[in-house]
Amino acid sequence: MPDDRRTLSQHAVVLEQIETLADLAREAILPWFRSPELGAANKTAEGFDPVTQADRAAEQALRAYLQEARPLDGILGEEFGPKASQSGLTWVIDPIDGTRGFLAGTPCWGVLIALADVDGPFLGVIDQPYISERFLGGLGQAWVDGPQGRKALATRTTPNLGDAILFTTFPEIGTTAEQAAFKRVEQNVRLTRYGMDCYAYALLAAGHVDLVIEAGLNPYDIAAPIAVIEAAGGIVTDWHGARVGENGQVIAAANAELHAQALALLRG
Amino acid sequence: MPDDRRTLSQHAVVLEQIETLADLAREAILPWFRSPELGAANKTAEGFDPVTQADRAAEQALRAYLQEARPLDGILGEEFGPKASQSGLTWVIDPIDGTRGFLAGTPCWGVLIALADVDGPFLGVIDQPYISERFLGGLGQAWVDGPQGRKALATRTTPNLGDAILFTTFPEIGTTAEQAAFKRVEQNVRLTRYGMDCYAYALLAAGHVDLVIEAGLNPYDIAAPIAVIEAAGGIVTDWHGARVGENGQVIAAANAELHAQALALLRG
Repeated sequence: MPDDRRTLSQHAVVLEQIETLADLAREAILPWFRSPELGAANKTAEGFDPVTQADRAAEQALRAYLQEARPLDGILGEEFGPKASQSGLTWVIDPIDGTRGFLAGTPCWGVLIALADVDGPFLGVIDQPYISERFLGGLGQAWVDGPQGRKALATRTTPNLGDAILFTTFPEIGTTAEQAAFKRVEQNVRLTRYGMDCYAYALLAAGHVDLVIEAGLNPYDIAAPIAVIEAAGGIVTDWHGARVGENGQVIAAANAELHAQALALLRG
Repeated sequence: MPDDRRTLSQHAVVLEQIETLADLAREAILPWFRSPELGAANKTAEGFDPVTQADRAAEQALRAYLQEARPLDGILGEEFGPKASQSGLTWVIDPIDGTRGFLAGTPCWGVLIALADVDGPFLGVIDQPYISERFLGGLGQAWVDGPQGRKALATRTTPNLGDAILFTTFPEIGTTAEQAAFKRVEQNVRLTRYGMDCYAYALLAAGHVDLVIEAGLNPYDIAAPIAVIEAAGGIVTDWHGARVGENGQVIAAANAELHAQALALLRG
């Protein structure tokens, strides 16, 4: 009998499985991070791309594990073709979210793994292998485990946009119209920070920032953040307040008040 | 008899001392990082500023240690008045460089500690307490110690600007003219990343990125990066190619070729 999120009786098993997946990704990716090969590849034009190599190695390791452990589940990954689901459940995988940050040696890229059903992602991990830091949300869990030990995730209660800390990967992405919409929000917050990729969503889930606004995202970029942030009490939608879809626009907010205030400005 | 960098016979002692200072800063600052007090302070307007509190606590701890261990040396810090040097040597301290990144919970702020004489900084540490990662350069040392163990620092040999990875804290700082000058460089590099504060200089010293260009810096923001980057083989000057001074403009380059190409564009 196929699982879905309501009949999933073995939460402990699937929680262990998603952590095993994150461990496998760490193992596959870390040897490439800040490796001499990365530096070399920047100087030659032979088509060797070590970031893609690390990305693919990790996704293959995760697919191999899932083939054994959960053969009926679907898989949607960045690097290989989708595998159809026979169980109603699909794993959504981006082994290295933030490849440019990875290439530059920053500690703000992450491994994204989510489990989704027809209603969307309901379990997710944002993992930062270099820091050994893992943010997990869903199935009754919401925690970060890292250098400061294990702590509960909970989004902030900041009621006013004027007090909010906003993250984005702008100015580098988005159309001109999207940039103008973003500017309207940016001009009304307390502080804007740039360039954190998926790590910004982790910081929102952990209650350190209030808003993340992005454009040009792919489905595998946002599935895990949705699960983690919702488990921590936050809200993730597109710029019209609808479920995140194909238009690539995402707004993640710590609470409903901030979400409404930011949405009104995005709409213009 | 006062020390200077040429007569400093006890390199091992001063290397131990700068590491002790970095340890003391970690100890003073980490309890504040991602603390509930930080979140609370964002919501109230009572004038309580926990980042400044952490900054001051760390600088006081460092000053107290130096008063005991090196009473004749001068101190230039961000938070308290300068102490004149009787030895010819001055410690330049910024306990939390990147307070906005700190406030937002990112792992890209850092502790900056440098030792300078009349010719400028010649020993420096860039420390990231949350990651337990330390970049040290000067007096024959050039290394990073962190999650991947201890590795030698060496800047990149990228010869062409078109292959370079550039970091900056723009778009948020600098005058309009400075932003235009920066844009000329940005349009000619391979990749630009934003918002890393002092961590960008550490990545340059470690050979992961090629250029860091900033404006509006204070002397205590750049002394430690200068020592670490020069020890790793890189170059740090102002936008005219002169020693970094009062105008707040900094360009750090992995090598002389890139430095010359970027300077030409900054001058316009």
